[in-house]
Amino acid sequence: MEPDISIPDVVIKRLPIYARALTAMLDAGSETVSSKELALATGSTAAQIRRDLSYFGEFGKQGKGYNIPHLLDAIRDILNINERYRVVVVGAGPLGQAIARYGGFSEHGFQLSWVYDHNPERIGTTLNDVVVEDVATMPERIRAMQVRVAIIAVPASAAQEVADTLVESGVKAILNYAPAVLRVSSDVRVYDIDPVSALQALTYYLAPAPSRLRRT
Amino acid sequence: MEPDISIPDVVIKRLPIYARALTAMLDAGSETVSSKELALATGSTAAQIRRDLSYFGEFGKQGKGYNIPHLLDAIRDILNINERYRVVVVGAGPLGQAIARYGGFSEHGFQLSWVYDHNPERIGTTLNDVVVEDVATMPERIRAMQVRVAIIAVPASAAQEVADTLVESGVKAILNYAPAVLRVSSDVRVYDIDPVSALQALTYYLAPAPSRLRRT
Repeated sequence: MEPDISIPDVVIKRLPIYARALTAMLDAGSETVSSKELALATGSTAAQIRRDLSYFGEFGKQGKGYNIPHLLDAIRDILNINERYRVVVVGAGPLGQAIARYGGFSEHGFQLSWVYDHNPERIGTTLNDVVVEDVATMPERIRAMQVRVAIIAVPASAAQEVADTLVESGVKAILNYAPAVLRVSSDVRVYDIDPVSALQALTYYLAPAPSRLRRT
Repeated sequence: MEPDISIPDVVIKRLPIYARALTAMLDAGSETVSSKELALATGSTAAQIRRDLSYFGEFGKQGKGYNIPHLLDAIRDILNINERYRVVVVGAGPLGQAIARYGGFSEHGFQLSWVYDHNPERIGTTLNDVVVEDVATMPERIRAMQVRVAIIAVPASAAQEVADTLVESGVKAILNYAPAVLRVSSDVRVYDIDPVSALQALTYYLAPAPSRLRRT
Protein backbone atom coordinates (compact mmCIF):
# COMPACT_ATOMS: atom_id res chain seq x y z
CA MET A 1 0.00 0.00 0.00
CA GLU A 2 1.38 3.37 -1.03
CA PRO A 3 -0.31 6.22 0.83
CA ASP A 4 -0.50 9.35 -1.29
CA ILE A 5 -2.14 11.74 1.16
CA SER A 6 -0.52 13.67 3.95
CA ILE A 7 -0.94 12.22 7.41
CA PRO A 8 -3.04 14.30 9.84
CA ASP A 9 -1.15 15.92 12.70
CA VAL A 10 -3.44 14.26 15.25
CA VAL A 11 -2.35 10.85 13.98
CA ILE A 12 1.34 11.79 14.16
CA LYS A 13 0.82 12.96 17.74
CA ARG A 14 -0.61 9.58 18.73
CA LEU A 15 2.22 7.49 17.26
CA PRO A 16 4.67 8.19 20.11
CA ILE A 17 2.01 6.90 22.53
CA TYR A 18 1.69 3.69 20.54
CA ALA A 19 5.47 3.34 20.40
CA ARG A 20 5.73 3.66 24.17
CA ALA A 21 3.05 1.04 24.83
CA LEU A 22 4.58 -1.34 22.27
CA THR A 23 8.03 -0.95 23.84
CA ALA A 24 6.58 -1.86 27.25
CA MET A 25 4.86 -4.92 25.75
CA LEU A 26 8.03 -6.03 24.01
CA ASP A 27 9.98 -5.63 27.25
CA ALA A 28 7.34 -7.79 28.95
CA GLY A 29 7.93 -10.57 26.41
CA SER A 30 4.95 -10.15 24.08
CA GLU A 31 5.39 -10.83 20.36
CA THR A 32 1.99 -9.87 18.95
CA VAL A 33 -0.78 -7.50 19.98
CA SER A 34 -4.36 -7.02 18.81
CA SER A 35 -5.72 -3.57 18.01
CA LYS A 36 -8.04 -4.05 21.00
CA GLU A 37 -5.15 -4.72 23.40
CA LEU A 38 -3.19 -1.78 22.03
CA ALA A 39 -6.28 0.38 22.44
CA LEU A 40 -6.62 -0.65 26.08
CA ALA A 41 -2.97 0.16 26.79
CA THR A 42 -3.12 3.59 25.16
CA GLY A 43 -6.56 4.85 26.11
CA SER A 44 -7.69 4.64 22.49
CA THR A 45 -10.15 2.47 20.57
CA ALA A 46 -9.40 -0.51 18.32
CA ALA A 47 -11.07 1.25 15.40
CA GLN A 48 -8.94 4.35 15.82
CA ILE A 49 -5.74 2.33 16.02
CA ARG A 50 -6.58 0.42 12.85
CA ARG A 51 -7.43 3.70 11.13
CA ASP A 52 -4.26 5.45 12.33
CA LEU A 53 -1.96 2.63 11.30
CA SER A 54 -3.65 2.23 7.93
CA TYR A 55 -1.98 5.48 6.86
CA PHE A 56 1.35 3.70 6.82
CA GLY A 57 0.50 0.45 5.10
CA GLU A 58 -0.56 -3.03 6.17
CA PHE A 59 0.94 -4.04 9.50
CA GLY A 60 -1.68 -6.41 10.92
CA LYS A 61 -2.77 -9.86 9.78
CA GLN A 62 -6.48 -10.63 10.01
CA GLY A 63 -7.07 -12.57 13.23
CA LYS A 64 -3.40 -12.63 14.22
CA GLY A 65 -2.89 -9.07 15.39
CA TYR A 66 0.21 -6.98 14.89
CA ASN A 67 3.75 -8.25 15.09
CA ILE A 68 5.17 -5.98 17.82
CA PRO A 69 8.84 -5.70 16.76
CA HIS A 70 7.83 -5.07 13.14
CA LEU A 71 5.19 -2.48 14.05
CA LEU A 72 7.44 -0.74 16.56
CA ASP A 73 10.27 -0.54 14.09
CA ALA A 74 7.93 0.86 11.45
CA ILE A 75 6.57 3.53 13.81
CA ARG A 76 10.06 4.50 14.91
CA ASP A 77 11.05 4.70 11.27
CA ILE A 78 8.00 6.83 10.42
CA LEU A 79 8.75 9.22 13.25
CA ASN A 80 12.45 9.28 12.37
CA ILE A 81 13.27 8.37 15.96
CA ASN A 82 15.80 5.72 15.10
CA GLU A 83 18.10 8.67 14.52
CA ARG A 84 19.72 10.77 17.22
CA TYR A 85 19.00 14.49 17.34
CA ARG A 86 21.01 17.29 18.85
CA VAL A 87 18.71 19.72 20.59
CA VAL A 88 19.22 23.33 21.62
CA VAL A 89 17.40 24.65 24.69
CA VAL A 90 16.81 28.42 24.80
CA GLY A 91 16.14 29.78 28.28
CA ALA A 92 17.87 28.69 31.47
CA GLY A 93 15.25 29.90 33.94
CA PRO A 94 13.43 27.46 36.26
CA LEU A 95 11.66 25.78 33.33
CA GLY A 96 14.76 25.55 31.13
CA GLN A 97 16.66 24.13 34.09
CA ALA A 98 14.00 21.47 34.71
CA ILE A 99 14.06 20.54 31.02
CA ALA A 100 17.86 20.33 30.93
CA ARG A 101 17.88 18.19 34.08
CA TYR A 102 15.11 15.86 32.89
CA GLY A 103 16.75 12.52 32.22
CA GLY A 104 14.21 11.19 29.74
CA PHE A 105 15.41 12.81 26.53
CA SER A 106 18.69 11.04 25.94
CA GLU A 107 17.34 7.49 26.06
CA HIS A 108 14.86 8.46 23.35
CA GLY A 109 17.44 9.83 20.97
CA PHE A 110 17.40 13.51 21.92
CA GLN A 111 20.70 14.93 23.04
CA LEU A 112 20.23 18.25 24.85
CA SER A 113 23.64 19.48 23.83
CA TRP A 114 23.42 23.22 24.40
CA VAL A 115 21.51 25.57 26.69
CA TYR A 116 21.40 29.31 25.96
CA ASP A 117 20.34 32.37 27.93
CA HIS A 118 20.94 36.11 27.73
CA ASN A 119 21.15 36.64 31.48
CA PRO A 120 24.83 37.12 32.55
CA GLU A 121 24.05 35.51 35.92
CA ARG A 122 23.01 32.30 34.21
CA ILE A 123 25.70 32.20 31.51
CA GLY A 124 28.53 29.95 32.64
CA THR A 125 26.46 27.94 35.11
CA THR A 126 26.21 24.19 34.58
CA LEU A 127 23.08 22.08 34.11
CA ASN A 128 23.62 18.32 33.85
CA ASP A 129 27.16 18.75 32.52
CA VAL A 130 25.96 21.32 30.00
CA VAL A 131 27.28 24.86 30.38
CA VAL A 132 24.78 27.67 29.81
CA GLU A 133 26.10 29.82 26.97
CA ASP A 134 25.40 33.32 25.72
CA VAL A 135 22.45 33.32 23.33
CA ALA A 136 24.35 35.75 21.08
CA THR A 137 26.63 32.87 20.08
CA MET A 138 23.74 30.51 19.31
CA PRO A 139 23.18 31.12 15.56
CA GLU A 140 26.77 30.27 14.74
CA ARG A 141 26.58 27.02 16.74
CA ILE A 142 23.27 25.96 15.18
CA ARG A 143 24.66 26.53 11.70
CA ALA A 144 27.98 24.83 12.40
CA MET A 145 26.39 21.75 14.00
CA GLN A 146 23.34 21.71 11.71
CA VAL A 147 20.98 21.57 14.69
CA ARG A 148 17.39 21.24 13.51
CA VAL A 149 15.51 20.78 16.79
CA ALA A 150 15.08 23.43 19.52
CA ILE A 151 13.17 23.88 22.75
CA ILE A 152 11.97 27.39 23.65
CA ALA A 153 11.69 27.98 27.40
CA VAL A 154 11.76 31.79 27.57
CA PRO A 155 9.01 34.22 28.65
CA ALA A 156 6.21 34.85 26.14
CA SER A 157 7.49 38.35 25.40
CA ALA A 158 10.80 37.00 24.07
CA ALA A 159 9.53 33.89 22.32
CA GLN A 160 8.91 35.26 18.82
CA GLU A 161 12.34 36.88 18.64
CA VAL A 162 13.97 33.63 19.75
CA ALA A 163 11.93 31.68 17.21
CA ASP A 164 12.99 34.06 14.43
CA THR A 165 16.65 33.59 15.35
CA LEU A 166 16.28 29.81 15.48
CA VAL A 167 14.53 29.64 12.10
CA GLU A 168 17.06 31.97 10.45
CA SER A 169 19.82 29.71 11.73
CA GLY A 170 18.24 26.58 10.25
CA VAL A 171 16.07 25.02 12.97
CA LYS A 172 13.07 23.15 11.52
CA ALA A 173 11.28 21.78 14.61
CA ILE A 174 10.46 23.80 17.73
CA LEU A 175 9.01 22.59 21.00
CA ASN A 176 7.50 25.77 22.44
CA TYR A 177 6.93 26.08 26.19
CA ALA A 178 6.24 29.82 26.00
CA PRO A 179 2.59 30.87 26.19
CA ALA A 180 2.78 32.63 22.82
CA VAL A 181 1.63 31.75 19.32
CA LEU A 182 4.77 31.67 17.19
CA ARG A 183 4.74 32.71 13.56
CA VAL A 184 7.24 30.72 11.52
CA SER A 185 7.77 29.91 7.86
CA SER A 186 5.76 27.03 6.45
CA ASP A 187 8.70 24.59 6.43
CA VAL A 188 9.08 24.83 10.22
CA ARG A 189 6.95 22.85 12.69
CA VAL A 190 5.98 24.14 16.11
CA TYR A 191 4.56 22.00 18.91
CA ASP A 192 3.03 24.09 21.69
CA ILE A 193 3.36 22.63 25.15
CA ASP A 194 2.06 25.53 27.22
CA PRO A 195 0.55 24.22 30.49
CA VAL A 196 -2.01 27.03 30.79
CA SER A 197 -3.52 26.19 27.39
CA ALA A 198 -3.52 22.53 28.37
CA LEU A 199 -5.37 23.27 31.62
CA GLN A 200 -7.84 25.46 29.76
CA ALA A 201 -8.54 22.65 27.29
CA LEU A 202 -9.16 20.36 30.29
CA THR A 203 -11.53 22.60 32.22
CA TYR A 204 -13.94 22.48 29.29
CA TYR A 205 -14.71 18.95 30.38
CA LEU A 206 -15.40 19.91 33.99
CA ALA A 207 -18.81 21.35 33.15
CA PRO A 208 -21.69 18.91 32.96
CA ALA A 209 -22.27 17.97 29.32
CA PRO A 210 -25.64 19.71 28.84
CA SER A 211 -24.44 23.09 30.11
CA ARG A 212 -21.26 23.08 28.13
CA LEU A 213 -23.17 22.68 24.89
CA ARG A 214 -25.89 25.15 25.63
CA ARG A 215 -25.17 28.15 23.41
CA THR A 216 -27.53 30.77 22.05
CA MET B 1 -28.03 27.53 16.85
CA GLU B 2 -28.11 24.61 19.24
CA PRO B 3 -25.28 22.17 18.59
CA ASP B 4 -26.23 18.64 19.46
CA ILE B 5 -23.00 16.82 18.71
CA SER B 6 -19.97 16.54 20.95
CA ILE B 7 -17.11 18.85 20.12
CA PRO B 8 -13.90 17.15 18.93
CA ASP B 9 -10.96 17.28 21.32
CA VAL B 10 -8.77 18.86 18.64
CA VAL B 11 -11.16 21.81 18.46
CA ILE B 12 -11.22 22.22 22.25
CA LYS B 13 -7.41 22.23 22.25
CA ARG B 14 -7.33 25.09 19.75
CA LEU B 15 -9.75 27.36 21.65
CA PRO B 16 -7.18 28.49 24.25
CA ILE B 17 -4.94 29.59 21.36
CA TYR B 18 -7.75 31.67 19.90
CA ALA B 19 -8.52 33.14 23.32
CA ARG B 20 -4.91 34.20 23.77
CA ALA B 21 -4.72 35.89 20.35
CA LEU B 22 -8.07 37.63 20.89
CA THR B 23 -6.94 38.94 24.29
CA ALA B 24 -3.82 40.41 22.69
CA MET B 25 -5.95 42.06 19.98
CA LEU B 26 -8.35 43.48 22.54
CA ASP B 27 -5.44 44.85 24.57
CA ALA B 28 -4.15 46.48 21.38
CA GLY B 29 -7.47 48.26 20.91
CA SER B 30 -9.15 46.17 18.20
CA GLU B 31 -12.90 45.65 18.31
CA THR B 32 -13.48 43.22 15.43
CA VAL B 33 -11.40 40.58 13.68
CA SER B 34 -11.86 38.61 10.46
CA SER B 35 -11.36 34.87 10.38
CA LYS B 36 -8.39 35.56 8.10
CA GLU B 37 -6.72 37.89 10.63
CA LEU B 38 -7.37 35.45 13.46
CA ALA B 39 -5.89 32.68 11.32
CA LEU B 40 -2.75 34.72 10.72
CA ALA B 41 -2.34 35.38 14.45
CA THR B 42 -2.76 31.75 15.44
CA GLY B 43 -1.02 29.86 12.67
CA SER B 44 -4.33 28.47 11.46
CA THR B 45 -6.47 28.96 8.34
CA ALA B 46 -9.60 31.07 7.98
CA ALA B 47 -11.59 28.00 6.96
CA GLN B 48 -10.54 26.08 10.06
CA ILE B 49 -11.41 28.96 12.36
CA ARG B 50 -14.87 29.32 10.82
CA ARG B 51 -15.36 25.55 11.13
CA ASP B 52 -14.13 25.44 14.74
CA LEU B 53 -16.28 28.33 15.91
CA SER B 54 -19.35 27.00 14.11
CA TYR B 55 -19.57 24.30 16.79
CA PHE B 56 -20.58 26.92 19.30
CA GLY B 57 -23.10 28.97 17.37
CA GLU B 58 -23.04 32.05 15.17
CA PHE B 59 -20.41 34.55 16.26
CA GLY B 60 -19.47 36.28 13.02
CA LYS B 61 -21.42 38.59 10.77
CA GLN B 62 -20.93 38.16 7.02
CA GLY B 63 -18.44 40.78 5.86
CA LYS B 64 -18.02 42.34 9.30
CA GLY B 65 -15.90 39.76 11.06
CA TYR B 66 -16.16 38.72 14.69
CA ASN B 67 -16.85 41.05 17.57
CA ILE B 68 -13.78 40.42 19.74
CA PRO B 69 -15.20 40.99 23.25
CA HIS B 70 -18.24 38.88 22.45
CA LEU B 71 -16.24 36.06 20.91
CA LEU B 72 -13.66 36.09 23.67
CA ASP B 73 -16.30 35.97 26.35
CA ALA B 74 -18.04 33.10 24.58
CA ILE B 75 -14.80 31.09 24.29
CA ARG B 76 -13.94 31.72 27.93
CA ASP B 77 -17.44 30.63 28.84
CA ILE B 78 -17.19 27.49 26.70
CA LEU B 79 -13.88 26.55 28.31
CA ASN B 80 -15.21 27.38 31.79
CA ILE B 81 -12.22 29.66 32.31
CA ASN B 82 -14.20 32.51 33.78
CA GLU B 83 -14.15 30.41 36.95
CA ARG B 84 -11.17 29.93 39.24
CA TYR B 85 -9.80 26.46 39.86
CA ARG B 86 -7.79 25.12 42.74
CA VAL B 87 -5.07 22.83 41.44
CA VAL B 88 -3.05 20.14 43.18
CA VAL B 89 0.50 19.45 41.99
CA VAL B 90 1.87 15.96 42.72
CA GLY B 91 5.64 15.72 42.64
CA ALA B 92 8.08 18.32 43.96
CA GLY B 93 11.14 17.26 41.99
CA PRO B 94 12.79 19.63 39.49
CA LEU B 95 9.76 19.57 37.18
CA GLY B 96 7.18 20.00 39.95
CA GLN B 97 9.27 22.86 41.32
CA ALA B 98 9.39 24.59 37.93
CA ILE B 99 5.62 24.18 37.59
CA ALA B 100 4.94 25.52 41.08
CA ARG B 101 7.21 28.49 40.46
CA TYR B 102 5.78 29.30 37.03
CA GLY B 103 3.87 32.55 37.43
CA GLY B 104 1.48 32.11 34.53
CA PHE B 105 -1.20 29.94 36.13
CA SER B 106 -2.77 32.33 38.60
CA GLU B 107 -3.57 35.10 36.11
CA HIS B 108 -5.48 32.55 34.05
CA GLY B 109 -7.64 31.33 36.89
CA PHE B 110 -5.59 28.39 38.13
CA GLN B 111 -4.54 28.53 41.76
CA LEU B 112 -1.75 26.06 42.48
CA SER B 113 -2.79 25.68 46.08
CA TRP B 114 -1.03 22.50 47.16
CA VAL B 115 2.10 20.59 46.22
CA TYR B 116 2.62 17.02 47.37
CA ASP B 117 5.56 14.64 47.47
CA HIS B 118 6.46 11.43 49.30
CA ASN B 119 10.12 12.31 49.78
CA PRO B 120 10.77 13.40 53.41
CA GLU B 121 13.54 15.73 52.21
CA ARG B 122 11.07 17.67 50.10
CA ILE B 123 8.14 17.69 52.52
CA GLY B 124 8.11 20.95 54.45
CA THR B 125 10.08 22.93 51.87
CA THR B 126 8.43 25.99 50.35
CA LEU B 127 7.76 26.72 46.67
CA ASN B 128 6.26 30.12 45.89
CA ASP B 129 4.66 30.42 49.32
CA VAL B 130 3.25 26.89 49.01
CA VAL B 131 4.56 24.31 51.49
CA VAL B 132 5.25 20.83 50.07
CA GLU B 133 3.08 18.37 51.97
CA ASP B 134 3.09 14.62 52.51
CA VAL B 135 1.25 12.87 49.67
CA ALA B 136 -0.36 10.57 52.24
CA THR B 137 -2.51 13.49 53.37
CA MET B 138 -3.57 14.41 49.83
CA PRO B 139 -6.82 12.41 49.43
CA GLU B 140 -8.37 14.01 52.52
CA ARG B 141 -7.48 17.52 51.26
CA ILE B 142 -8.83 16.88 47.77
CA ARG B 143 -12.12 15.63 49.18
CA ALA B 144 -12.43 18.42 51.73
CA MET B 145 -11.69 21.19 49.23
CA GLN B 146 -13.43 19.50 46.30
CA VAL B 147 -10.36 19.89 44.10
CA ARG B 148 -11.08 18.67 40.57
CA VAL B 149 -7.87 19.59 38.72
CA ALA B 150 -4.43 18.03 39.29
CA ILE B 151 -0.99 18.12 37.72
CA ILE B 152 1.11 14.95 37.79
CA ALA B 153 4.87 15.61 37.82
CA VAL B 154 6.21 12.31 39.18
CA PRO B 155 8.36 9.67 37.46
CA ALA B 156 6.58 7.38 34.97
CA SER B 157 6.82 4.43 37.36
CA ALA B 158 4.69 6.21 39.98
CA ALA B 159 2.24 7.97 37.68
CA GLN B 160 -0.53 5.36 37.50
CA GLU B 161 -0.66 4.94 41.28
CA VAL B 162 -0.85 8.71 41.72
CA ALA B 163 -3.58 8.93 39.07
CA ASP B 164 -5.59 6.21 40.84
CA THR B 165 -5.37 8.10 44.14
CA LEU B 166 -6.40 11.38 42.49
CA VAL B 167 -9.38 9.83 40.73
CA GLU B 168 -10.55 7.99 43.86
CA SER B 169 -10.41 11.30 45.71
CA GLY B 170 -12.59 13.06 43.14
CA VAL B 171 -10.23 14.69 40.62
CA LYS B 172 -11.76 14.92 37.13
CA ALA B 173 -9.04 16.63 35.05
CA ILE B 174 -5.36 15.64 35.03
CA LEU B 175 -2.47 17.38 33.32
CA ASN B 176 0.08 14.57 33.01
CA TYR B 177 3.78 15.37 32.66
CA ALA B 178 4.86 11.78 33.28
CA PRO B 179 5.86 9.78 30.20
CA ALA B 180 3.22 7.13 30.93
CA VAL B 181 -0.18 6.36 29.46
CA LEU B 182 -2.63 6.69 32.33
CA ARG B 183 -5.72 4.52 32.57
CA VAL B 184 -8.59 6.39 34.22
CA SER B 185 -12.35 6.03 34.36
CA SER B 186 -14.31 7.48 31.46
CA ASP B 187 -15.50 10.55 33.39
CA VAL B 188 -11.91 11.74 33.93
CA ARG B 189 -9.93 13.66 31.29
CA VAL B 190 -6.16 13.37 30.91
CA TYR B 191 -4.01 15.78 28.89
CA ASP B 192 -0.54 14.39 28.24
CA ILE B 193 2.20 16.96 28.10
CA ASP B 194 5.23 14.68 27.90
CA PRO B 195 8.08 16.49 26.11
CA VAL B 196 9.59 13.32 24.65
CA SER B 197 6.35 12.42 22.86
CA ALA B 198 6.12 16.00 21.65
CA LEU B 199 9.65 15.88 20.23
CA GLN B 200 8.93 12.53 18.61
CA ALA B 201 5.83 13.96 16.94
CA LEU B 202 8.00 16.82 15.65
CA THR B 203 10.84 14.77 14.22
CA TYR B 204 8.40 13.11 11.84
CA TYR B 205 8.40 16.38 9.94
CA LEU B 206 12.19 16.53 9.70
CA ALA B 207 12.29 13.95 6.94
CA PRO B 208 11.69 15.15 3.40
CA ALA B 209 8.07 14.54 2.43
CA PRO B 210 8.60 11.81 -0.18
CA SER B 211 10.70 9.57 2.06
CA ARG B 212 8.42 9.87 5.06
CA LEU B 213 5.49 8.52 3.06
CA ARG B 214 7.33 5.72 1.30
CA ARG B 215 6.15 2.51 2.98
CA THR B 216 5.99 -1.03 1.64
